[in-house]
Amino acid sequence: MKFSLALAGLFISFILAAQSPLPGLMPYPKSAILQDGKYRLNASFNASCIADDKDDILYSSVNRIFHGINRKTSLYFKQQYIKPGIVGKTSLIVKVAKKSDMFRGVDESYTLQVNSEGIMVDAATSIGAIRGLETLQQLLQKDTAGFYIPFVLIKDVPRFSWRGLMIDVARHFIPIDVIKRNIDAMATVKMNVLHLHLTDDEGFRIESKLFPKLHEKGSNGQYFTQDQVKDIISYARLRGIMVVPEFDMPGHTRAWFAAYPEFASAPGPYEPGPRFSVPANSNEPINIAAIMSVPTPTIDPTKEEVYKFLDKFFGEMANLFPSPYIHIGADENNGMAWKNNPAIVSFMNQKGIKDVHELQAYFVKRMYGIVQKHKKTMIGWEELNSPDLPKDVVVQKWIADGGFMKSHGKPLDIAIKGNPVIISTGFYTDHFLPAYIHYQNPNIPATDHPNIWGGEAAQWTEIADAGNIELRIWPRTGAIAERLWSPANVNNNENMYDRLFHLSKQLDEQGLQHIASYERGLRRLSNGNEYYNLKNLTDVLAPVRVMKNLFGRLGNPTQLSNNSSPFVEGGDIIFPDSEVKRTFRKNIAKYLDKKDPETEFLLKQQLELWIANHNVLIKAGMMQSGYANLEAHSANLQKISVTGLKALEKIKTGQVFSADEMTEIQKELKDARMPHGNAELDVVLEIESLIKQTLLPEPKMYPFF
Amino acid sequence: MKFSLALAGLFISFILAAQSPLPGLMPYPKSAILQDGKYRLNASFNASCIADDKDDILYSSVNRIFHGINRKTSLYFKQQYIKPGIVGKTSLIVKVAKKSDMFRGVDESYTLQVNSEGIMVDAATSIGAIRGLETLQQLLQKDTAGFYIPFVLIKDVPRFSWRGLMIDVARHFIPIDVIKRNIDAMATVKMNVLHLHLTDDEGFRIESKLFPKLHEKGSNGQYFTQDQVKDIISYARLRGIMVVPEFDMPGHTRAWFAAYPEFASAPGPYEPGPRFSVPANSNEPINIAAIMSVPTPTIDPTKEEVYKFLDKFFGEMANLFPSPYIHIGADENNGMAWKNNPAIVSFMNQKGIKDVHELQAYFVKRMYGIVQKHKKTMIGWEELNSPDLPKDVVVQKWIADGGFMKSHGKPLDIAIKGNPVIISTGFYTDHFLPAYIHYQNPNIPATDHPNIWGGEAAQWTEIADAGNIELRIWPRTGAIAERLWSPANVNNNENMYDRLFHLSKQLDEQGLQHIASYERGLRRLSNGNEYYNLKNLTDVLAPVRVMKNLFGRLGNPTQLSNNSSPFVEGGDIIFPDSEVKRTFRKNIAKYLDKKDPETEFLLKQQLELWIANHNVLIKAGMMQSGYANLEAHSANLQKISVTGLKALEKIKTGQVFSADEMTEIQKELKDARMPHGNAELDVVLEIESLIKQTLLPEPKMYPFF
Repeated sequence: MKFSLALAGLFISFILAAQSPLPGLMPYPKSAILQDGKYRLNASFNASCIADDKDDILYSSVNRIFHGINRKTSLYFKQQYIKPGIVGKTSLIVKVAKKSDMFRGVDESYTLQVNSEGIMVDAATSIGAIRGLETLQQLLQKDTAGFYIPFVLIKDVPRFSWRGLMIDVARHFIPIDVIKRNIDAMATVKMNVLHLHLTDDEGFRIESKLFPKLHEKGSNGQYFTQDQVKDIISYARLRGIMVVPEFDMPGHTRAWFAAYPEFASAPGPYEPGPRFSVPANSNEPINIAAIMSVPTPTIDPTKEEVYKFLDKFFGEMANLFPSPYIHIGADENNGMAWKNNPAIVSFMNQKGIKDVHELQAYFVKRMYGIVQKHKKTMIGWEELNSPDLPKDVVVQKWIADGGFMKSHGKPLDIAIKGNPVIISTGFYTDHFLPAYIHYQNPNIPATDHPNIWGGEAAQWTEIADAGNIELRIWPRTGAIAERLWSPANVNNNENMYDRLFHLSKQLDEQGLQHIASYERGLRRLSNGNEYYNLKNLTDVLAPVRVMKNLFGRLGNPTQLSNNSSPFVEGGDIIFPDSEVKRTFRKNIAKYLDKKDPETEFLLKQQLELWIANHNVLIKAGMMQSGYANLEAHSANLQKISVTGLKALEKIKTGQVFSADEMTEIQKELKDARMPHGNAELDVVLEIESLIKQTLLPEPKMYPFF
Repeated sequence: MKFSLALAGLFISFILAAQSPLPGLMPYPKSAILQDGKYRLNASFNASCIADDKDDILYSSVNRIFHGINRKTSLYFKQQYIKPGIVGKTSLIVKVAKKSDMFRGVDESYTLQVNSEGIMVDAATSIGAIRGLETLQQLLQKDTAGFYIPFVLIKDVPRFSWRGLMIDVARHFIPIDVIKRNIDAMATVKMNVLHLHLTDDEGFRIESKLFPKLHEKGSNGQYFTQDQVKDIISYARLRGIMVVPEFDMPGHTRAWFAAYPEFASAPGPYEPGPRFSVPANSNEPINIAAIMSVPTPTIDPTKEEVYKFLDKFFGEMANLFPSPYIHIGADENNGMAWKNNPAIVSFMNQKGIKDVHELQAYFVKRMYGIVQKHKKTMIGWEELNSPDLPKDVVVQKWIADGGFMKSHGKPLDIAIKGNPVIISTGFYTDHFLPAYIHYQNPNIPATDHPNIWGGEAAQWTEIADAGNIELRIWPRTGAIAERLWSPANVNNNENMYDRLFHLSKQLDEQGLQHIASYERGLRRLSNGNEYYNLKNLTDVLAPVRVMKNLFGRLGNPTQLSNNSSPFVEGGDIIFPDSEVKRTFRKNIAKYLDKKDPETEFLLKQQLELWIANHNVLIKAGMMQSGYANLEAHSANLQKISVTGLKALEKIKTGQVFSADEMTEIQKELKDARMPHGNAELDVVLEIESLIKQTLLPEPKMYPFF
């Protein structure tokens, strides 16, 4: 088997531009050259490695991908396991120069070549080989003659070294099987850091053998045992992913105080539970600033016992988590609990600490000493930033400059000052934003800087739980993964969406529950009956965006700290993006441009479907179902679809709506934009363009925090 | 809050007969009296227990059911957790006389009363309370005014004390999350024994700390750690389920010999893998008798080291599993490996052991001593039966009298002789039989006997894996659970099916993956596209029945001992029963009886759908899809549906088909009965009845092993 990585002598059919003929690839590689020809798979498809025999990460990954392809193709490969040693002529050779675990900055590059001789993945390290094998799996295609991999030469390397996903397992506990499925999906899109937010007011989600009261009193029985943590770490390790633990402090610590009220800034007793509560069914507008300034459970930073205790606890955790990083949170401490405690105020006076910001810096400094002692690098949310912050502390950005909250520095400024930066601003998947918003994230500086390590998608769980978290994170996080892996100029929204929906199907095929959870949710709303017509509606809804949704629902006891909260309403199970919406949007844009009969037909068909659909739903007894709160959307969709059909007629006959008609239509559109059941109708802009015969507006941006 | 369990003074609207107005209940209670009225649920719904404060099984179960109802109703109950202590006026009171773990014979009875005062579950033990709470959850109903529990008085007690599910985790490894979901489903239908078949030729699936080579060499990395085993046991315990381990020997032991070839009856080396292989794509009929008489890896029963080793190993396992039972398998040892070994033959001569059956009895006796030493009761498959079998050994029946294999005694005979009996004959869910077959299982003796402990559903995994095992076991096992719980006279097939499909929806709602796996399979076959039309076809297919399917597929390397075998073809993901089929069957029966226009309309609608459906599938490019091997079924369904429509016309006009027409039709029906893609068209009998204007034939029975 001969592989030539040189291009000389090869006929190159065409160079891939942003419009890719390799729709399965996400993130898109740095360089991919498609060539004429297909490598066909049959039952003799086999594999071997040129690598260190002891490279368990590599062998585990090769077997995983090999069995995945076997499963996808149903070819029943004769080779059962890939073990060290060359097995004669092999279809796939994986060559690794150096065995390596995942660490930040490890060489993740690879070359993948497919030609008539076979397939070669060539990488400097085991981790690079894993990335290449994931690409290989995404290249698998099918035609009438069966499954094949197109001839291709890919040379790939990531843009950023830190490509993470943060999961909040504290607000609602997320069990190990869900975590593992997320790890599988992360591996598919080449992410390399799983950041677990393990503690918060609502729960202390990790077993401590030194201080068992922490998880016993702080979790209502819902926590990871240390064996489960080891299981997660090892599962992630074999997929080239590092697990970084977060213990959020000094705020967000109510659950700790259930066990140790003496460490709090205000007297107890405490029980795990939400930081603040918003009155249910309140009709008054929510005053977020007021809510955020309430005193909340906070560690007392003046007590030496606190640091002694945290030193021991961090020692235990530093030992459990092999990652060189520990995240101490440090976010959203408004200092009110400190200001209200005379002993703390007197401590400040004594030490010359002039305000709660300086006291926070004092606490961070003490924690820095502890983290250093246990030979780890400290990470914190951006509120840990201060003028004297040591240069080896990593700052995780989450607040937008000019946003609602006070930013603690621009990413590039922090980087230039000398601290490494991880960017989560604009990557909050719990804000229900469509994927293109994250994809075009303006918070990633235009210029790369060695201290900008990368970014993290962040999924908080105030209003998500084990039953819907997969559909909240995926497939959108694929767009974030691509932003962090691919060159900055891979940035075409339409192209990204084509590949994102492809990815969604791949993740489903591999066992992720995002689509299954959506469809189970639809069955649940339909009392177990056929949900096909309901899906016609929910496919064009979107959850209410950003904080309106979050804060609008905090009044309900949604933060019940177990994994069975009732996040089962329409708004809880719908995706911010859908293929139906994208296709409709594309067709509207095309028709407004070309006025071609084919697109006109497709638009008519879609509008007529929505009109008919509402009648079917009503007939099926929508009001008796679990989705009565979506009825208004269905009725509105019918109404604006009728108007949409009329608009098509006007365009064809060169007419426009009269002023009187427009008055009526404006009212109709206004109604259609109203949220119901925590959901919004998400095709109104498109139909409005058709009615007004104007170009589609630019994709809407949303304010970040 | 006053509860009267006496019936005096209550208006009893009607006594429930086999036709139940409580469609959610499965298994059906011994006595259920529905009364006029509904107890309505709202956010104030709350609960407390009159019980031992330390009853963790009870409190865990009450919380689980309470949160389940909260989730199902989306009412956001104000009470978050149910903890010891009465919380004022409570909607639900659970009263338990005595805290208890699950053990065979524990009092599982309960009384459940719902009236205007509230709900009371009253049980002698924690286990009885769990069973009652599951019934409560199944009573939850909905009308236009919201969710409610009907006023009812239920007094319930199981018929059998052993109601088990056996899962073979050896042939294909079944990971812990899938096991836990099965435990959830078992709890729903009040099953109380999870029997894990942990070792077989294909894999040694449990960590041994004493002999780590066993799982290291015998599992290809796919096994339960002891921590996971403890996790499973504790998860099951909290749901009133006991976990019984099986270590199959002296046959079915190839995987052991990968580590210890010296314990085998024939020289090694060994690797875990199937016991025998059938040549792939062989066109010759499969000679099962010949296959079954091949020498297979078997423990050498003559070596003292073997018993020393097994004594230590069983000591370790006896300690790990708290259940008082250990299952030693002992099935399917044809003795050929012994006959072929001169040293074993000479041992037999020396000891006066006259044949391999006696040698098997010798081995069983030695193992009995070891199991006794570790204070456990021994269970084995029926081949461990022999004239001298000690009376405290439990015999698990799996072979039918008069079936293909040699039976080792009728259940009642064994029971009368003095050995306890567990019946699995007729309860093999891996035989792809419809639920009514198991429901009417003739292997359950008509007379109950104290030594007939009960039965077990059995799911072997030669051709099932983690991806499809839930749809293989469920919902059919609900019918088995009812056979084992409910009185023998609860036996109406139609009524059972109504409740079974209801159960299926309940299990789906709770998170079981049977429907999600089916639909994921359909998406996979459709390359991720809409599968609605494909489902119209697959809903009326059934997997090829019994051994034809199993043996027909052993030629493929389907026993790849990991959890990613490609069981993703049409035949792998379809259910033996479907609601569409049952409804069609019911309508055919009704129409043949009444000739009423309403039923005629429904039949026409269905037949026309099938006719149109084939055209859509062909247009959608069936041949390019993953389900090309189902095309013949779709075409046949279209053909016989056309004939079915003609038959409806004939009936209406009082005509019959001519002899010539019938000749053509017989050919059509014969084609339609042919299997393709491991599946059979499952509405042929029904359409045939319509054509012939005869009554529907009695439900078909199938031969058991």
